[in-house]
Amino acid sequence: MPALHPAANGTLRGAALFAPIAADLAEVERVFSRKLASHRRHVARLVDHLDHYAGKRLRPALLLLTAHACGRVEPAHHVLGAVVEMIHTATLVHDDVLDEADLRRHVRTVNAGWGNKASILLGDMLFSHAFHLASSVDAQACEIIGGATNRVCEGELHQVTERGNLSLSEEDYFDIIEGKTAALTACCCRLGALYAGADDDAVDRLADYGRNLGVAFQIADDLLDLTGLEESTGKTLGTDLAQGKLTLPLIHVLDRLPSDEAAKVRALLVNADTPREALLPYLRQTNALNYARRRAEEFAAAARDALTVLPPSDCRSLLLALTDWTVRREK
Amino acid sequence: MPALHPAANGTLRGAALFAPIAADLAEVERVFSRKLASHRRHVARLVDHLDHYAGKRLRPALLLLTAHACGRVEPAHHVLGAVVEMIHTATLVHDDVLDEADLRRHVRTVNAGWGNKASILLGDMLFSHAFHLASSVDAQACEIIGGATNRVCEGELHQVTERGNLSLSEEDYFDIIEGKTAALTACCCRLGALYAGADDDAVDRLADYGRNLGVAFQIADDLLDLTGLEESTGKTLGTDLAQGKLTLPLIHVLDRLPSDEAAKVRALLVNADTPREALLPYLRQTNALNYARRRAEEFAAAARDALTVLPPSDCRSLLLALTDWTVRREK
Repeated sequence: MPALHPAANGTLRGAALFAPIAADLAEVERVFSRKLASHRRHVARLVDHLDHYAGKRLRPALLLLTAHACGRVEPAHHVLGAVVEMIHTATLVHDDVLDEADLRRHVRTVNAGWGNKASILLGDMLFSHAFHLASSVDAQACEIIGGATNRVCEGELHQVTERGNLSLSEEDYFDIIEGKTAALTACCCRLGALYAGADDDAVDRLADYGRNLGVAFQIADDLLDLTGLEESTGKTLGTDLAQGKLTLPLIHVLDRLPSDEAAKVRALLVNADTPREALLPYLRQTNALNYARRRAEEFAAAARDALTVLPPSDCRSLLLALTDWTVRREK
Repeated sequence: MPALHPAANGTLRGAALFAPIAADLAEVERVFSRKLASHRRHVARLVDHLDHYAGKRLRPALLLLTAHACGRVEPAHHVLGAVVEMIHTATLVHDDVLDEADLRRHVRTVNAGWGNKASILLGDMLFSHAFHLASSVDAQACEIIGGATNRVCEGELHQVTERGNLSLSEEDYFDIIEGKTAALTACCCRLGALYAGADDDAVDRLADYGRNLGVAFQIADDLLDLTGLEESTGKTLGTDLAQGKLTLPLIHVLDRLPSDEAAKVRALLVNADTPREALLPYLRQTNALNYARRRAEEFAAAARDALTVLPPSDCRSLLLALTDWTVRREK
């Protein structure tokens, strides 16, 4: 195991954790920027603004780590790394329109700065360039990526149509997050393995790794929305609740409480003025945060299990380390 | 020339004009519906609503007529016909979010009925399914389609960023409509010819046909926004003006008038309460509607010229007839 690993407090020491793939990530950035460069100044100005959306580059990192762990990184991996990051960025840009979020990573969203119209079109342009770029690899890449984005859209649509449903089931919750988050992380690992020449079984197992990691990541993200501090997450607090989105801890609360108490919690949830603290006794009574943490750990464990298909290597160790970071991170 | 042609009043006798490709269009519809069928009820419900967006199917018709005129229709054409219609529908759905249009074809828009969030995601899902479906043909189809949608997005983005610019140049106007409209009609004809086995020169000439037809179509559409009646177009009247979008006739007015009179027209345009009739004297004084009609005719003529690459056939005659219909239609 390399010295580079998630720090004890659960934060990702970004560049350090990804040091073995730093040169590959830099090449992904170059492909990304080159593809979106435009001689049209109105396009160029908006594209510049995308820097504010640059996050951990988790998805290209997953793709590249998987490729390395399967034996080799090809030029196709750099192209596909840029493709998955464009798709992820497109969903963030459109999310900001959806959620009327005021803050994302402490800067004005494209939406707040440029209006809904430009945000929708910028997201569309990112989707379009992603698919166009994928076509420079081959039809199979387009098929895998298109299949994943279909599922991402269905997951997001499921979430939107269930907004305000205070009887959302765990089954629906998992259908939503397997779509909106895990379909793309699974796709990243599938592409990483496939274009490194891994055999069919290894490709499928690594897609399983990506899917389970994605589910664990999303449960942890939803937990942060309930427990995090504005300073450390860069998001407006409690966004999920304000938007009527039930996440795993609250679904557990409502499942476990006697129906009269569950009715009280639902009454708190529909009242926009409810202070977040009012929910704490119910979360504690049903041990809901720990329940959600345990579920996240289960998916992380399934992800670790899928990695046994690979021979030991530095990059396999980093993929393993990501399963810990995912559930323990504080932002 | 077949008996089926645009009616004297310029309306498209849809099914009749397209009778030679009716069976092919029906197959396109089947591919379209099958691809979007979902076992997820929230997705299925939204997809049902897309029936309201079903228009003339002009884009698949162009693709199929081109294929027939080049000699043969293959299964790939039916698939690609569904792809281009999905992309066109996605842009309509996102346009409705953009424009807060209350009416489109006399029914509530997805936006009005389901909220911005669902509209954005439905549009995204259509883009995604379109690209996924294209990957079942080959990488070249994905490349051509992705290239066209890149250009469509750039054109729309150009339009949005120039909104309210009352000094928009003709050059910018044409850059916008070549993107938002003509890139996709050019793509339809390119795909029709390519997958019918036409040679490179014919493929390029037919793409030219589609591009010129698209530009003519959009100029005519912009003219209808100024001159049409609400009853016959099914759109809120004067949408372009209300949104600060300058189109060819008004660009011509502002170019031709002495600067003091142009300033008066700009003052009328920034005042939301200006009755449309107030612009009529200026449109007449500069002969602006006729100027725009003449420009549309020029593009229609260029489209006709490109068709000389094809041997005579019923479908070539229909492509010719479309160049007349495009500039003479009343809706």
